[in-house]
Amino acid sequence: MKHGFALFGAGRIGQIHARNLAAHDDAQLRHVIDVSADAARRLAASSGAQVSDARAALADPGVQAILIASSTDTHAELIQAGGRAGKAVFCEKPLDLDLARAEASLAVVAQAGTLLALGFNRRYDPAFRRLQREIAAGRVGNVEVVSITSRDPSPPPPAYVARSGGLFRDMMIHDLDMARWLLAEEPVSIFARGSALIDPAIGAAGDIDTAVVVLETASGRLCQITNSRRCTFGYDQRIEVFGSAGLARADNVPATTVETADAAGFTREPALPFFLERYAAAYRDELDEFLKALRGAPAELATGIDGRQALRLADAAQRSLDTRAPVSLQT
Amino acid sequence: MKHGFALFGAGRIGQIHARNLAAHDDAQLRHVIDVSADAARRLAASSGAQVSDARAALADPGVQAILIASSTDTHAELIQAGGRAGKAVFCEKPLDLDLARAEASLAVVAQAGTLLALGFNRRYDPAFRRLQREIAAGRVGNVEVVSITSRDPSPPPPAYVARSGGLFRDMMIHDLDMARWLLAEEPVSIFARGSALIDPAIGAAGDIDTAVVVLETASGRLCQITNSRRCTFGYDQRIEVFGSAGLARADNVPATTVETADAAGFTREPALPFFLERYAAAYRDELDEFLKALRGAPAELATGIDGRQALRLADAAQRSLDTRAPVSLQT
Amino acid sequence: MKHGFALFGAGRIGQIHARNLAAHDDAQLRHVIDVSADAARRLAASSGAQVSDARAALADPGVQAILIASSTDTHAELIQAGGRAGKAVFCEKPLDLDLARAEASLAVVAQAGTLLALGFNRRYDPAFRRLQREIAAGRVGNVEVVSITSRDPSPPPPAYVARSGGLFRDMMIHDLDMARWLLAEEPVSIFARGSALIDPAIGAAGDIDTAVVVLETASGRLCQITNSRRCTFGYDQRIEVFGSAGLARADNVPATTVETADAAGFTREPALPFFLERYAAAYRDELDEFLKALRGAPAELATGIDGRQALRLADAAQRSLDTRAPVSLQT
Amino acid sequence: MKHGFALFGAGRIGQIHARNLAAHDDAQLRHVIDVSADAARRLAASSGAQVSDARAALADPGVQAILIASSTDTHAELIQAGGRAGKAVFCEKPLDLDLARAEASLAVVAQAGTLLALGFNRRYDPAFRRLQREIAAGRVGNVEVVSITSRDPSPPPPAYVARSGGLFRDMMIHDLDMARWLLAEEPVSIFARGSALIDPAIGAAGDIDTAVVVLETASGRLCQITNSRRCTFGYDQRIEVFGSAGLARADNVPATTVETADAAGFTREPALPFFLERYAAAYRDELDEFLKALRGAPAELATGIDGRQALRLADAAQRSLDTRAPVSLQT
Repeated sequence: MKHGFALFGAGRIGQIHARNLAAHDDAQLRHVIDVSADAARRLAASSGAQVSDARAALADPGVQAILIASSTDTHAELIQAGGRAGKAVFCEKPLDLDLARAEASLAVVAQAGTLLALGFNRRYDPAFRRLQREIAAGRVGNVEVVSITSRDPSPPPPAYVARSGGLFRDMMIHDLDMARWLLAEEPVSIFARGSALIDPAIGAAGDIDTAVVVLETASGRLCQITNSRRCTFGYDQRIEVFGSAGLARADNVPATTVETADAAGFTREPALPFFLERYAAAYRDELDEFLKALRGAPAELATGIDGRQALRLADAAQRSLDTRAPVSLQT
Repeated sequence: MKHGFALFGAGRIGQIHARNLAAHDDAQLRHVIDVSADAARRLAASSGAQVSDARAALADPGVQAILIASSTDTHAELIQAGGRAGKAVFCEKPLDLDLARAEASLAVVAQAGTLLALGFNRRYDPAFRRLQREIAAGRVGNVEVVSITSRDPSPPPPAYVARSGGLFRDMMIHDLDMARWLLAEEPVSIFARGSALIDPAIGAAGDIDTAVVVLETASGRLCQITNSRRCTFGYDQRIEVFGSAGLARADNVPATTVETADAAGFTREPALPFFLERYAAAYRDELDEFLKALRGAPAELATGIDGRQALRLADAAQRSLDTRAPVSLQT
Repeated sequence: MKHGFALFGAGRIGQIHARNLAAHDDAQLRHVIDVSADAARRLAASSGAQVSDARAALADPGVQAILIASSTDTHAELIQAGGRAGKAVFCEKPLDLDLARAEASLAVVAQAGTLLALGFNRRYDPAFRRLQREIAAGRVGNVEVVSITSRDPSPPPPAYVARSGGLFRDMMIHDLDMARWLLAEEPVSIFARGSALIDPAIGAAGDIDTAVVVLETASGRLCQITNSRRCTFGYDQRIEVFGSAGLARADNVPATTVETADAAGFTREPALPFFLERYAAAYRDELDEFLKALRGAPAELATGIDGRQALRLADAAQRSLDTRAPVSLQT
Repeated sequence: MKHGFALFGAGRIGQIHARNLAAHDDAQLRHVIDVSADAARRLAASSGAQVSDARAALADPGVQAILIASSTDTHAELIQAGGRAGKAVFCEKPLDLDLARAEASLAVVAQAGTLLALGFNRRYDPAFRRLQREIAAGRVGNVEVVSITSRDPSPPPPAYVARSGGLFRDMMIHDLDMARWLLAEEPVSIFARGSALIDPAIGAAGDIDTAVVVLETASGRLCQITNSRRCTFGYDQRIEVFGSAGLARADNVPATTVETADAAGFTREPALPFFLERYAAAYRDELDEFLKALRGAPAELATGIDGRQALRLADAAQRSLDTRAPVSLQT
């Protein structure tokens, strides 16, 4: 039996989800909703869905789930509407840029007793999943230090920066979620330092483009995160987990394994260019896990709680940057 | 406009092609033909095609192309029937185990003026394509030595060996095609040595499971190939091209980039298990190239001629093994 | 002409220096001084030097330089005595565990106008030197983030911990020097977090065995350091430097390049076991640089100032750990 | 007790041996003999030995061993003179370019009952030794295919080529020895193909600069060797051993582990430039093994027999090239 979906957002990520829904045996895309009628029409046409508005889509009893890939400021309202309509919700990160609104959404969903999953794509990346399984299997022993490197290929336009919520809520939130997942323990303190080294316009907008963060858990596990908004050698996405028994790490992914050699040395390909390429499998797998959950099967999903906790960490990182002091977190 | 296909063979490779046809915007699978009615029915059902026989499929004016993934002994007849019916043909390797029959097929296709492409999957592997482009771009200078390593994960059952045509025609034929492609020049001599080291039953069946081959071209370029029917660390598929300006090589592909470390050292994942995983992208891309050709666009395809030349090399390798002497090839 | 040396300390590091002095064309070891008469005698015998005491060694006009490899609490006194005697001094790190005493030593040397070099061995490691040259040559563009990983193979005995000055002064001081060298700018703030995760006895002694530090410079460059007192896969010594043009990094060094493969994957050798192996070349090269300086040739040496600055950073890291707050550094 | 040595040959390799003798606790270099009086004088001076002629050196009862690093045409005579004088002999490869003369030398040494070791430096390279130990320990199971890649950085001058004995006797002889060592079984057939692709002057001198060889043992083990006289990315020295349980391989050795990254990808250093760098440790270790044998301790040495067998293989490879047919070897 196919689960019916309504898709909010026909942009870059919405298009990926539409394609993955089309390729999945258990899913059917029924509605596409977007503020741009044109974008909605094009995506609906290519995926055999109809152009709708939120009211119609949520009223369709053939829709079991909504997939939210629209702009961040619409997330809270749609999650709540979805929950109230009894639909399962898969929402792209973040829940919201405002913690109170995010918590209001969680409350509505909890009240409705419906499913809410968050699109932290890294959790579904085959390399990071394997890393997490190695840790869970005891391969590194007691986890002591997690080191996360995450760098975008090029800085966003200043206009985006202005409404992004800042580097911590917009970009590092992924890494903060990874940290919680791999530390397997909630951080109790966070310290952040950052600079605008790449683009002065980012600094002028009150944001940073280069950051380093330290997290600590109650048992004394530590985590380092570094972010940059620009990286010449591709989308730099690496994680190392060090523990009492050894190390597990996931390196960058090149397009191919081709290597050339000459007097300058041996040259391998750069990292894949950006998230569409690096996390292509993750987007497929996160949908697959969500469909497992819809069928009532065991599924590994980032939940609304995970979304809220990552947002709390991002807020605290911003506060640490602003106050130049570490911030304690109540758990 | 969608190109209509008939698919011969509903086995492992037929299923891959069916899935790739379904996912391609320009293709429509209309007929599935298989000696097993059950297999045909299942694949037809899951792909929205109908179960047919060859006559009906070839008579359908909505079919522009046939895709031959049935057993080797059916290839020649189907290629010829396809050509006579004016259909473009995409045929899994080999053309045939018998050179005369292979040439007869080429003659029919030539007469018909239709397209014949051969499924040498390695030509479409992103790593080997990149390798070939690096060479074509002069990155290694004048090609001097090509080294090809190709090892299957585990030996085939003796029954398969008996009808396989032997290691050279069944397995090394892929590498002989790679050699021609990367040397960019026809070999003029071949020398082969082989042993049955893995499974005595393979030796008893008159075949070998371990082989080394040397090729030479008119200009003096050399090529080494080694094959094995068993490899503990996955499907070992590597090529190195050495030349006056340097080296280009394609290494094995692991499932992920995860590496673990402990007192025993640093351990990366084994190579992908077999061709379904390693050449998944190649199967998609070979279909895409074939569809380009159907649209009249420039396409990079292994042709019937390539299939025949590889078969001639495989025959000569077998003769070299049998006579324990090098074999000259007329070009 | 050979430069005469007196060597203080006949332990593990003293023996390395004795061997390197013996192999160097420009050096002659004349005196060995150690609190253990036996150790001094053995080393003197094998190196053709005489057993002396400090007074005799410093009074020998054939001695141009002293090499201090004795215990940390003797460094300040010996540096000052060497300077007063007009001898050039090569001193193992640290200058002292107490900043005031370290500065007193620098004052004496400055007054004497003699040479004082500090044995920060990493500065002479061929990989880290190459890294520094790549940075100086602009290969990474503007340096933005330096990431240093430094882990010992196994924790020191608790008795050592007690008199070591703590992880920051004893172990991380090397990495703090690397940070200054590679950032090419003085840090203006430092933040440290640490835990005793490996050995409760270390915690009981008031020290930590696992640490993470963040440094910031005036221009906004950032540096992450992580230290651990135990590492199952060898002596983990890695540095990454990220900048506007790309990345340069130095990886661990294995004993050989041998790799084995089986169903578990591809396994390379662990990192070299500890500093005697990893920094063998560095010990030779630091002596060679020191001898260049003695000849009046241009030499790249870590100076007494470098020793003091690293100690100031270590002190500040300890203060940050104790106060749980970042510490500002006057420059 | 120090073993006294006489060194024949004060050229590049002789100088390495002199330095290693000087650094070894058990050895003393007493005589240096060279056709160039100047070269002998300089090396003798720097190593504390005296300039001698063969007669005087062999008559010195303080000399237990002679080390032959003079030109190939002097080897046979010196080996025989050394044996007759009761001296142990360490001889640089090859024994001779002529098999009959080589065998005559072995006969004299056998008669004298003295030690003869051959300087096949690769046998003492730490990576290749580790490879051999892994094989001996069963890590690859039954050895099935050995693949050896050996490429010099740049072709020798034509004058050298003319008196070199040809690529097989001059260069590949090292790899033929490696093949015997790693196959752990004598080859029973050999096939060679070669070309002059790099320098027409080499072809004009009747030699080749690019070669591929196949060896087969009685049990069916196979070996591939490829040689080239020019390689842009350094001294290319790699070996792979494939067997029933997996693979063991030794890769090239870079100067450092430094890697840089930018939009072109990740670049590691080229291979070490040539044998002086790559086999520096091997030259030390081969002397150490020889001194163990002089002390009567168990030692792993390439013997005169090994030298003769490698020469027989090189002769057979040349014959195979000349006749364009495989050559059988009596064992």
